[in-house]
Amino acid sequence: MAHDAPLSPLAPKTVPDMPAIEGVRFASGAAGIRYKGRTDVMLALLDKGTQVAGVFTKSKCPSAPVDWCRAKMKGGKARALLVNSGNANAFTGKVGADAVKLAAKIASAATGAKEGEIFMASTGVIGEPLDATKFEGVLEGLVKEASGDKGLDAARAIMTTDTFPKVATAEAEIDGVRVRISGMAKGAGMIAPDMATMLSFVFTDAPIAAPALQAMLSKSVQGSFNAITVDSDTSTSDTLLLFATGAAAARGCPKIATANDRRLKAFKVALDIVLTNLAHQVVRDGEGARKFVGIEVTGADSAKAAKRIAFSIANSPLVKTAVAGEDANWGRIVMAVGKAGEKAERDKLAIWFGGIRVAYKGLRDPAYDEAKVSAVMKEQEIEIRVDLCLGNGASKVWTCDLTKEYVAINGDYRS
Amino acid sequence: MAHDAPLSPLAPKTVPDMPAIEGVRFASGAAGIRYKGRTDVMLALLDKGTQVAGVFTKSKCPSAPVDWCRAKMKGGKARALLVNSGNANAFTGKVGADAVKLAAKIASAATGAKEGEIFMASTGVIGEPLDATKFEGVLEGLVKEASGDKGLDAARAIMTTDTFPKVATAEAEIDGVRVRISGMAKGAGMIAPDMATMLSFVFTDAPIAAPALQAMLSKSVQGSFNAITVDSDTSTSDTLLLFATGAAAARGCPKIATANDRRLKAFKVALDIVLTNLAHQVVRDGEGARKFVGIEVTGADSAKAAKRIAFSIANSPLVKTAVAGEDANWGRIVMAVGKAGEKAERDKLAIWFGGIRVAYKGLRDPAYDEAKVSAVMKEQEIEIRVDLCLGNGASKVWTCDLTKEYVAINGDYRS
Repeated sequence: MAHDAPLSPLAPKTVPDMPAIEGVRFASGAAGIRYKGRTDVMLALLDKGTQVAGVFTKSKCPSAPVDWCRAKMKGGKARALLVNSGNANAFTGKVGADAVKLAAKIASAATGAKEGEIFMASTGVIGEPLDATKFEGVLEGLVKEASGDKGLDAARAIMTTDTFPKVATAEAEIDGVRVRISGMAKGAGMIAPDMATMLSFVFTDAPIAAPALQAMLSKSVQGSFNAITVDSDTSTSDTLLLFATGAAAARGCPKIATANDRRLKAFKVALDIVLTNLAHQVVRDGEGARKFVGIEVTGADSAKAAKRIAFSIANSPLVKTAVAGEDANWGRIVMAVGKAGEKAERDKLAIWFGGIRVAYKGLRDPAYDEAKVSAVMKEQEIEIRVDLCLGNGASKVWTCDLTKEYVAINGDYRS
Repeated sequence: MAHDAPLSPLAPKTVPDMPAIEGVRFASGAAGIRYKGRTDVMLALLDKGTQVAGVFTKSKCPSAPVDWCRAKMKGGKARALLVNSGNANAFTGKVGADAVKLAAKIASAATGAKEGEIFMASTGVIGEPLDATKFEGVLEGLVKEASGDKGLDAARAIMTTDTFPKVATAEAEIDGVRVRISGMAKGAGMIAPDMATMLSFVFTDAPIAAPALQAMLSKSVQGSFNAITVDSDTSTSDTLLLFATGAAAARGCPKIATANDRRLKAFKVALDIVLTNLAHQVVRDGEGARKFVGIEVTGADSAKAAKRIAFSIANSPLVKTAVAGEDANWGRIVMAVGKAGEKAERDKLAIWFGGIRVAYKGLRDPAYDEAKVSAVMKEQEIEIRVDLCLGNGASKVWTCDLTKEYVAINGDYRS
């Protein structure tokens, strides 16, 4: 079932490269966890001194690897990342926790890293035990062949219902020294904030201490992975890890200890760019998606209210099916604003599709031209804006349409 | 486009009768509001002394008729109910409020009822002005032909994407005197709690004062209309009205002033039966629905937590598509429990499909037989139960599956 869907029409026209990050080597292989004839395991080897930060699912029933990573995160150090697709090792009880321990043991033996500095993630079917012995005999080979230029292959190995690998990169200067951020993501369904993506791994050569990394990551995720939704469902495995190898220190980059260091200004912008790019790619690969939809809410009582209203619109099946049907059904936008539970005044609302105002002060805009709006709705990328005209709260989120293909993909995922 | 969908496979095998209620006369006709070749307006005439109670959408952007009913509800008296399909008169600003006033004026002239005792509801497209002059010349005829046995025709006139009319009835004794409750509902999409149905009107001949009616209605709605969901979307027009004509007083039924009157015991049970029956019919006519799904959550921290978890499951697109695909994907149930935000312990959860326990204490039930569960999933009615094994909180909700037909129906509703 994986990989048999045609490429998403919203996929980037060219698959971008994933430039190497000094201090990181990738390898991928086939452990035969579930799929046949494709890679399903990726290993990232991290140079000594690598710092790590992470954000995880807020699910009350997280997967065993999420439990593992949360516990190991306290050390702030990482030497290896092991990820498999095909099985999420979620809701597998003690058997699942044991599988993670065994995987760490095997990875430690193969890489030489301490178990406490090995991070792991699994994606795929949930509720099925993961047979960690399948990593045995595979990881040694991966360690041998790992190299800095194999990031894109690694991104391919962690795909499930994804139709394209997702990578992004950006550069920035810290005190005049060029550093790079490159990352990958996978996720196509079960995508909703807290966290949004199922899995994303981001790497930089900047020498930044774990607490500073964590503060920047937690902030940057709000406008990126926590601002997207495909189907309002939240995975038990959502994991975002940010690794900083510090290799740029050898080129004169200063070591950064705190997130409020002014020299991080450009780095923060670059991090936002990479995370937002990856988050958008997840939406662009939303199961069955045909339209990429940006939803901007302004004039709300607060930023929090704006985000809640934006997600109410983004998650509404009626809004999403209307977009799929290329119907500028602003009545459904009103419905979604109304059900969000945040302050709204019907007779102040204004709504735009693609820059064309269709509703104003509680009723249809007198200048509203159905033909023009219809043309907007035929586009692959659609911008919806709602102004509540109440306050200064603003927020932007991204989603996709809800199509028959979504239902088809998810109606027989497990079979 | 209304009425062109085939009858829901979940429809009751026979359309039940809607027995007459003493003191209520119905009529329906074609006002040409939107549809051609079908009825789109219904009028109920209520005898003098009729008491009324109501529950409305919690949307922050309610329709103009909802505003009207809320205001008139304070009087507690009703003489007429006017309902149209084809146009919801929602988000129509001052024009919408004016349309409601004009409709009340026309209805008052035709029926002789005071405007303050006329209740109204509209369903259909939102965001389009309603031309209330279309009622002119129609209502006089309806007043003439109104009779007690035309309830089912009235239920047909208020349908939109419904594939069958929804009526239910029950009887009870108050102090030894037989009274009756009959009601109708419409709604097939945009169905989620607070309130669930778009429109429902229930009538009784029992002589019960408005405050007592209101207390009983507000309570009964929790386990009925506020325990169903089709697509998590909430209409701006949701309206549930309960009218008590008091005609049974002539047969010796005592007048009831307060909801805690012990003589109401059987009446309350009958009211629950009628509202639950109507609510279930709404789900059974869920747009594109092929499966009727009951979701029971037990062992939660509180009843409120149980309901929130039950709705998290019921509204999950991944759970609903799995049901559509006849896949007993209990991993997605775990996901939905986890994302609800309520207290849950992964390693205590137990999950049943149709009485078969598939998961227990955090992993797959050792006795779980895939073939048996597959047979359960092929049924039209599916019971899912989750025991959190934490406390005594329990709740039950009902939903339907999410199919390609839902997407098709809602992808071109307005066009």
